[in-house]
Amino acid sequence: MQLSARNRLPGTVVEVVKGEAAAKVTLQVGDNHMVALITRESADELGLEPGKSVTALVKATDVMVLTEEGGVA
Amino acid sequence: MQLSARNRLPGTVVEVVKGEAAAKVTLQVGDNHMVALITRESADELGLEPGKSVTALVKATDVMVLTEEGGVA
Amino acid sequence: MQLSARNRLPGTVVEVVKGEAAAKVTLQVGDNHMVALITRESADELGLEPGKSVTALVKATDVMVLTEEGGVA
Amino acid sequence: MQLSARNRLPGTVVEVVKGEAAAKVTLQVGDNHMVALITRESADELGLEPGKSVTALVKATDVMVLTEEGGVA
Amino acid sequence: MQLSARNRLPGTVVEVVKGEAAAKVTLQVGDNHMVALITRESADELGLEPGKSVTALVKATDVMVLTEEGGVA
Amino acid sequence: MQLSARNRLPGTVVEVVKGEAAAKVTLQVGDNHMVALITRESADELGLEPGKSVTALVKATDVMVLTEEGGVA
Repeated sequence: MQLSARNRLPGTVVEVVKGEAAAKVTLQVGDNHMVALITRESADELGLEPGKSVTALVKATDVMVLTEEGGVA
Repeated sequence: MQLSARNRLPGTVVEVVKGEAAAKVTLQVGDNHMVALITRESADELGLEPGKSVTALVKATDVMVLTEEGGVA
Repeated sequence: MQLSARNRLPGTVVEVVKGEAAAKVTLQVGDNHMVALITRESADELGLEPGKSVTALVKATDVMVLTEEGGVA
Repeated sequence: MQLSARNRLPGTVVEVVKGEAAAKVTLQVGDNHMVALITRESADELGLEPGKSVTALVKATDVMVLTEEGGVA
Repeated sequence: MQLSARNRLPGTVVEVVKGEAAAKVTLQVGDNHMVALITRESADELGLEPGKSVTALVKATDVMVLTEEGGVA
Repeated sequence: MQLSARNRLPGTVVEVVKGEAAAKVTLQVGDNHMVALITRESADELGLEPGKSVTALVKATDVMVLTEEGGVA
């Protein structure tokens, strides 16, 4: 299987917070934390829970770029 | 300054391909490659070029999660 | 009225799950199910409920493409 | 700091509705209302509440264009 | 493999238009046309060309819902 | 017709830059400029050109919020 989404970042689930319709999933990806807001249905069906190995997937049109000219962080 | 976008991944520009309207920017982020499709205008104004330090920024609603049950990669 | 969004898929609401801030709407579109995560405010104002005819609308930049080389589904 | 996101609209928070995972933030931006669906975590960390000055930020790939040919609103 | 993206619509590539950075891919999905704007890199790597069977994939947060109250199309 | 997209900002086309696959459309919206990256096909079909009245449309899940604590712009 091949997917057009260019960004695949392997990581581990750290936390899952479930609402009625949405769920927030926090991942550890290398040295960074990532957060995904997905449907609760997805979080349930994928059995997401802390410690599970997953891949974060992002379409190239959804990536922004930030530069830090002038020393402002 | 604080931004609601939850995902900030520091990296380095590897390649910039410019079209008339759009530009594709490839980044090295830790052990992974990331690709951003942005306006050419942005790529020009930010002076993106290989070697430049940048941060990839992604809104939590744009992150998908993939699991690899059953040994299928 | 004309809209730049390229993808318009007519269907019928199958289920609406409402949280405080978000709502998940499941649609039957031809032979497929589709799921939309929208604000609860939108779901209320549009009077979405099972059986209602609607159109799913998606911007071209939000469509990914998957191929299934090698027989992997 | 410079960001590739092309759209920055200064405004004021009008209302914040928090669910478990998501939060809906309504802004007054010039003569228009805008609505953002973000993680509740973001809404908490940014201390969003009515009256606070903020900037709405949108990536160019997420803006659609609507024309109103034929007098249909 | 399981993916959190809720919307998977099987179809066939009808047309591919390639620019320098971006590519527009038109699909036939059931009775509807769909259009994806992806990186040219993706279109090349996936070998997208007319007649190829693919699946259109859309995250639930990227689906909007349109109702046609009052007979206005 | 009613649409779930919460953000509708009336404006005027200022500039259209067309590539092969994508087009960048700049709008004047109140006191702000906005930029949309859409398919060239959309820009052609909608007859977008400087001076044309249009509405910018954004889904709530695509709006980020920025605060400027500490005087950093």
